[in-house]
Amino acid sequence: MTNKEVTITEVCPRDGFQSVSEWIPTEEKVRIINQLIDCGYKQIEVTSFVHPRAIPQLKDADEVLKRIKRSKDVKLRALVPNTRGLERAIAAGVDKVKLMLSASDSHSISNANCKTEEAFERFVPLVELAEKSGMKVGGSISVAFGCPYEGEIPVERLVMICEKYRSLGITEVSLADTTGMANPVRIKNNVRELRRRFPDFTFSLHLHNTRGMAFANAVAGWEEGIVHFDSSAGGLGGCPYAPGASGNIASEDLIHGFEEMGIHTGVSLNRVIEAAKDIQQSLPQYVDSFLLKAGKCSDLSASPKAQQKVQI
Amino acid sequence: MTNKEVTITEVCPRDGFQSVSEWIPTEEKVRIINQLIDCGYKQIEVTSFVHPRAIPQLKDADEVLKRIKRSKDVKLRALVPNTRGLERAIAAGVDKVKLMLSASDSHSISNANCKTEEAFERFVPLVELAEKSGMKVGGSISVAFGCPYEGEIPVERLVMICEKYRSLGITEVSLADTTGMANPVRIKNNVRELRRRFPDFTFSLHLHNTRGMAFANAVAGWEEGIVHFDSSAGGLGGCPYAPGASGNIASEDLIHGFEEMGIHTGVSLNRVIEAAKDIQQSLPQYVDSFLLKAGKCSDLSASPKAQQKVQI
Repeated sequence: MTNKEVTITEVCPRDGFQSVSEWIPTEEKVRIINQLIDCGYKQIEVTSFVHPRAIPQLKDADEVLKRIKRSKDVKLRALVPNTRGLERAIAAGVDKVKLMLSASDSHSISNANCKTEEAFERFVPLVELAEKSGMKVGGSISVAFGCPYEGEIPVERLVMICEKYRSLGITEVSLADTTGMANPVRIKNNVRELRRRFPDFTFSLHLHNTRGMAFANAVAGWEEGIVHFDSSAGGLGGCPYAPGASGNIASEDLIHGFEEMGIHTGVSLNRVIEAAKDIQQSLPQYVDSFLLKAGKCSDLSASPKAQQKVQI
Repeated sequence: MTNKEVTITEVCPRDGFQSVSEWIPTEEKVRIINQLIDCGYKQIEVTSFVHPRAIPQLKDADEVLKRIKRSKDVKLRALVPNTRGLERAIAAGVDKVKLMLSASDSHSISNANCKTEEAFERFVPLVELAEKSGMKVGGSISVAFGCPYEGEIPVERLVMICEKYRSLGITEVSLADTTGMANPVRIKNNVRELRRRFPDFTFSLHLHNTRGMAFANAVAGWEEGIVHFDSSAGGLGGCPYAPGASGNIASEDLIHGFEEMGIHTGVSLNRVIEAAKDIQQSLPQYVDSFLLKAGKCSDLSASPKAQQKVQI
């Protein structure tokens, strides 16, 4: 309940970039990732090794990984949907791969063309190969707090999925509120139950601000002992079901909020703001960030002259 | 800690309208207020009886009050800065008036041209007149959780202000995060201390979403026993210090969030959404609302066909 340190994984280069329809040139991706590497994150989700037809934006993943700078302080994580993706991730020398499946069958069918349990079967050879290669594997659960097709996800469904992950030897699991359907009560109830049932797991929260509750959900998770969070610089990464709606919580907003609460992230907020501003220069229509509009709480204004203005 | 009911005061007609630079015709104001009256709010802040030069947008306050419909279920509150304003409020037949002052001297000088303690002295004749007329009086504290000129406000300063309010017989106090500088830890600490020191007071929270924390702050306040909240339909009402930044938390976002948490507001979310959409028609550039972009959590999408799309 009283953790005063949290860890933020920066996901802009994966979750953010994949939502951008215009091609982002490889050198631009490399430049942004290098800037993010300098921010002090312990982990960055750098790309997704998916088939180029599935996400054309990330087709240069191998090239990007060759060209970015490496730092021993920053773990690089990549999403892999299958064994071919894992092979590419191994060749690219990432530190960790993440598997992804959906809490609901309907979202799973939409994303992976198969039901949730079938998705696990496809993971078996992948996990075997990862073990042989010494590659760390984490898992994630999309739409964990609500599915846009089915609504609320029963916690027992999350428990079943975590059991499946455990059977594959995976105990690091990201709970993703993919379309921003969580609320603080649901976060607390589900996180408490999952942490009780899986005390050996490391859970993280991947929150979207679709309905304005992302930061409240982060705080709710933190109050239940979660210390790992994903976020995206500039708030890049939208909601696929409501064009124009907010998506990923912006890293600068999450870091600023935590730091204001006295919870340390180890990330340089000023550098993240600079990186987000840089992203805003290239991709203004994709940026969605409170901090870039309002500035930090500590950015005080000059003391004013008396004015005839009423504000409350 | 476990209140399952909260009360929302709708402040769009006051805090929202006053931030709109184009003239909103009187009949338009009346139409919007009448729509809001039908939403099920127990209280609406309908206007501010200020000098027309101070806020030209609200110069038709008396006329608006004459023309809106009245409902015994909806209390009408108005802001009054001085005795002249109170006289107008009495003549207009509102149910309650609200006084406003700033937690910091610099914000007080900016808004009211005098220091905080001097503002109290000006209230004395006003409160005497209100007593004589049987008019209920509430107070508010602007920039209660942070001043854009001075930064954090020591809780002792809030205690001093509440003592002054008590000396005037005012025990209903709105704590306003005027420029969105609060965070959940500060809300909890200050609310806990104020409720401990002033157990006879009714505190409410007036939250702005300037840095994305408004809903988290509402939840923090609720967890500390606050059951009264202000919000503005369509999120009307900006941040005067950062043009374009978010301001008041949108009523539809606050109500939706609470209802999703199982906390009842007694307000019809659907009607508020309709009212907000209507406001969006007239004043699109002022609306700032998650719900209007993303819809409710319960607005499920049709189950999709399998797609080659990756989301997490």
